[in-house]
Amino acid sequence: MKTLAWEHHALQLLDQTRLPGEERYLCCTRWQEVRDAIRILAVRGAPAIGVAAAYAMVLAARDIAADEPDKTQFEIRLAEAGRGLDGARPTAVNLHWAVQQQMNLARRALSSHTVAETVELLEQGACTIERDDAEMDRRIGRYGAGELGKSRQPLTILTHCNAGALATAGIGTALGVIRTLHSQGLVRQVYADETRPLLQGARLTVTELMDDHIPVTLITDNMAAWVMKTKGIDAVVVGADRIAANGDTANKIGTYGVAVLARAHNVPFYVAAPASTFDLTIPDGAAIPIEERNHDEVRSLGGIVATRPDVDVFNPAFDVTPHDYITGIITEKGVIHHPDDAILATFFRKEG
Amino acid sequence: MKTLAWEHHALQLLDQTRLPGEERYLCCTRWQEVRDAIRILAVRGAPAIGVAAAYAMVLAARDIAADEPDKTQFEIRLAEAGRGLDGARPTAVNLHWAVQQQMNLARRALSSHTVAETVELLEQGACTIERDDAEMDRRIGRYGAGELGKSRQPLTILTHCNAGALATAGIGTALGVIRTLHSQGLVRQVYADETRPLLQGARLTVTELMDDHIPVTLITDNMAAWVMKTKGIDAVVVGADRIAANGDTANKIGTYGVAVLARAHNVPFYVAAPASTFDLTIPDGAAIPIEERNHDEVRSLGGIVATRPDVDVFNPAFDVTPHDYITGIITEKGVIHHPDDAILATFFRKEG
Repeated sequence: MKTLAWEHHALQLLDQTRLPGEERYLCCTRWQEVRDAIRILAVRGAPAIGVAAAYAMVLAARDIAADEPDKTQFEIRLAEAGRGLDGARPTAVNLHWAVQQQMNLARRALSSHTVAETVELLEQGACTIERDDAEMDRRIGRYGAGELGKSRQPLTILTHCNAGALATAGIGTALGVIRTLHSQGLVRQVYADETRPLLQGARLTVTELMDDHIPVTLITDNMAAWVMKTKGIDAVVVGADRIAANGDTANKIGTYGVAVLARAHNVPFYVAAPASTFDLTIPDGAAIPIEERNHDEVRSLGGIVATRPDVDVFNPAFDVTPHDYITGIITEKGVIHHPDDAILATFFRKEG
Repeated sequence: MKTLAWEHHALQLLDQTRLPGEERYLCCTRWQEVRDAIRILAVRGAPAIGVAAAYAMVLAARDIAADEPDKTQFEIRLAEAGRGLDGARPTAVNLHWAVQQQMNLARRALSSHTVAETVELLEQGACTIERDDAEMDRRIGRYGAGELGKSRQPLTILTHCNAGALATAGIGTALGVIRTLHSQGLVRQVYADETRPLLQGARLTVTELMDDHIPVTLITDNMAAWVMKTKGIDAVVVGADRIAANGDTANKIGTYGVAVLARAHNVPFYVAAPASTFDLTIPDGAAIPIEERNHDEVRSLGGIVATRPDVDVFNPAFDVTPHDYITGIITEKGVIHHPDDAILATFFRKEG
């Protein structure tokens, strides 16, 4: 089961809305199909969205190049596609980052290459983004295992949503840490929040961990506090969709609550995310746009309306965990302990 | 829509598992049918279970009386039925309380009445328990509205699960407080946690509040923290299934987490429950038995399995909120502020 694959100039996307019941791939040959797949969450997870968007830019470039030999017009039309992709979901910054990476590459290439050559370079660029993402996961896994596994005692870990292989092009961020710990014999038990409304924990995290024979227990989101109180949780590890310059972290709705509960139970709370998830242009979490999704996601379960069909709903897809709740952010460049704006500025200046 | 009704020597129970889609009544003519209805949560909510059990004791008494004129044998067989009812669910103490009330009544009656007369007295006893429960709700509502509504400003309130008319024989405990506040123009907005796995919030609380035109917004359980952070929650009010002598309170799973979140956001956290929910025989929450229910409740939503069908699950139906998280317990005898064992002992000595 691969999250995405670039084959014969088409992007194959595993349709995650159908998991775990059905393993079906969407074959995207146009950038608009990728945009729609991102919108409906067929592909989700900040890093995976970034990789998909990088390939979508290749699809757009090839499509435009077919009838546009003029470099200036090509660039204008490619930028238009980029804006269309960028607007598919507002919170995850990796989407914006990947589109910008590809636009910058296109601009550089066009100064000395033909449109056709630029398309090829964009394809290589997307492959590099994908390969780098997988490599970053491995590094995050190693740094995370080093940090969490210091005691060399098997750990009981709680995670929320899915920051796994299905959310990236590699072994995952939060689940990359758990996989690496497991390979060292350092996982006793994982508790997976089901993560309403769309159940990425129940559908995706459970599937990934069971496939890898990592012991996992599924709970509803409202059991996390009681599990922390009664089951001896050693650490929480989650992913991220956007991290502001002070370390405030947007992630799947419910993450903030888990962070508050972790503090109340003296449980270390870790965020695992690559550098592409940081948005140093915004000072803090208040500037992160929070996507609000369709109310029927909350009203229904598995397509069946469970409440009054006309009930008012609040359905934020993300929340923001203030940096002071975060024990450490595990990146491919190392662990940022007790992040704040000074520490992040130093870290990125040093690591480049 | 009435939670339960005693008609023609039968107990009509609204089958709450079918709400809000279908309004169907179970007609129980044998005590075992009531026990089964309690087990499958056709009737649920600690006070409602108590009232249903009181009537189930009448059904048992009538059944036994039909072929058992001997008082001693009648009492022995009635006590057996009582134990069967009492074992239907372990956490809510009102079930135990109601069975004991009826057994005590039967023992007193048998000393000076025939078996047939005792059955009639048990029927009157059950009617009294039902009537008293409705009256207690009104009083809880008034005390709660007095406590929460002091500022005379409309409030934004969060509640978890359903402690409403559907959980009692009256206007509800937590929802009784909300209804009373609403009648005084003091409810701006109610946020209802959907309350996985069985969605009593989405199915029952939403239905009750919309029927009464009280503004309600449905959220998934994992949104409670973000709602407290961003929506200006003035108070949390929930029900209870059992309250220990020190004020530790068992209630629907997720309540403890809401209490921890409420403290972190400086939101007052209230429990609304009648005196029959207190179990002064146990010193603290550690002694409250926590029911664990079928794992498929967590694995499936609306009957459809959403995860790996063989995933391990933890499914506690309740959790315990330590007394020091509780701003006040609203009873029919007044509000117990910052409950602990000394305060509870004084309160019940004074109130009798």
